[in-house]
Amino acid sequence: MKRNIKLVISYDGTDFCGWQIQKNGRSVQGEIENALKQLHSADLRLTGSGRTDSGVHANGQVANFYTDSSIPTGKFVPALNSILPQDVRILESSQAAEDFHSRFDAKIRIYRYYIKAADVCLPSQSRYCWRVRTKSDILRLNKIAAPLVGVHDFTAFAAAGDPSESKTRLLYSAVFTMERGFIVFKIAGNAFLWRMVRSIVGTIIEISNNGGSAADMLSILDSKDRSRAGATAPPQGLFLDRVLYDEQAII
Amino acid sequence: MKRNIKLVISYDGTDFCGWQIQKNGRSVQGEIENALKQLHSADLRLTGSGRTDSGVHANGQVANFYTDSSIPTGKFVPALNSILPQDVRILESSQAAEDFHSRFDAKIRIYRYYIKAADVCLPSQSRYCWRVRTKSDILRLNKIAAPLVGVHDFTAFAAAGDPSESKTRLLYSAVFTMERGFIVFKIAGNAFLWRMVRSIVGTIIEISNNGGSAADMLSILDSKDRSRAGATAPPQGLFLDRVLYDEQAII
Repeated sequence: MKRNIKLVISYDGTDFCGWQIQKNGRSVQGEIENALKQLHSADLRLTGSGRTDSGVHANGQVANFYTDSSIPTGKFVPALNSILPQDVRILESSQAAEDFHSRFDAKIRIYRYYIKAADVCLPSQSRYCWRVRTKSDILRLNKIAAPLVGVHDFTAFAAAGDPSESKTRLLYSAVFTMERGFIVFKIAGNAFLWRMVRSIVGTIIEISNNGGSAADMLSILDSKDRSRAGATAPPQGLFLDRVLYDEQAII
Repeated sequence: MKRNIKLVISYDGTDFCGWQIQKNGRSVQGEIENALKQLHSADLRLTGSGRTDSGVHANGQVANFYTDSSIPTGKFVPALNSILPQDVRILESSQAAEDFHSRFDAKIRIYRYYIKAADVCLPSQSRYCWRVRTKSDILRLNKIAAPLVGVHDFTAFAAAGDPSESKTRLLYSAVFTMERGFIVFKIAGNAFLWRMVRSIVGTIIEISNNGGSAADMLSILDSKDRSRAGATAPPQGLFLDRVLYDEQAII
């Protein structure tokens, strides 16, 4: 019987066209499938918990694949890392239940978005944050973000072309904190629409910079009109932080 | 009379041959001199506080130049940043005394070296740390580093080809701390020999991994023999953190 292997994956999204294999462009999925092909001398399909866009990073993307090789489960970490380029690293491998599906079974997805409120950003940080002019403080940003938590139709924050039939999602939390000089937005939900996190971040900063409040956020959310929301924040600030498969997990 | 402008500069050293202009290769000094040339329509010479090697980063390199332009002193920050590539950023500009010299007048140089003690490093961190297998704890590393502080002949830690006549330097501090999952080595001295910080870091880790102690460090230091010291740690973990011009500064 084939084993179902679950991987936890981190990557620097800078030089990728995104998670998903595309005809033209270097994808994370493509790099890992290539490495699996080398290990198995056969084509394997890797299923990810979800796509990330070009430039978006991950510290804890999850994916799974079926293998009939004799490689011990834990050895997929060094074996894959020895083949993969440095901007993709496998952090963990474990054997999952036979029917485990990294996308359909994911209960909670957690993203982090890093913002540097400054005129200049250190070059060693500029690949991993959005540098933006804002005098927003954490308290103000948290007040604006508060109406997002709960079950809502998030059409106002879905990019044109989002394929989901229902735009209703459940957000568990949406909180700003300070971390080493960055404003960090941590958002956890059952699932996200296309570019939803970046649309939300761009909108919150825009509301704050314009002197707006939670009422403006509520009004945009209720409008279900993407044109009412703010600009999409750039990809390099965004990290897919973790994917959880247990609804009871503490987040 | 020409103004003497002091700059504080940060850079990501990954794609540079180092600070100093070289015939073949992209240097930080070269990029900034090119930008100054565009602003002045004339060649200007930029003097740095010291060289950094290829791959070494800086958060607070200092350099100075003389200008007869009408650009206001504070405006050199946006003016240069609008020309410079993203991996070099000017953080501050200020008018210095007429005879200020960023190298000869520097009293204290502070470096940080980032170590990740793990089998795997997040891709977003791998450009900025040395990933190394070690079970060293901070207390142990600090004990090994302790004999370095003070005035010593550091010949054992100078790379072959170091041009300094005297190898005697004054170290104010050499301390390991933990920071966001990294082991960070912070070292402050009046000046450093070529590759001295990286040789010291490599030696401390080697002593620690071999079960050695401060006595081994003292013995290597006293030997004045480079072959007794450990391997040079790689450049990507090293940041020139700050350069101070006041001996009384709190470091």
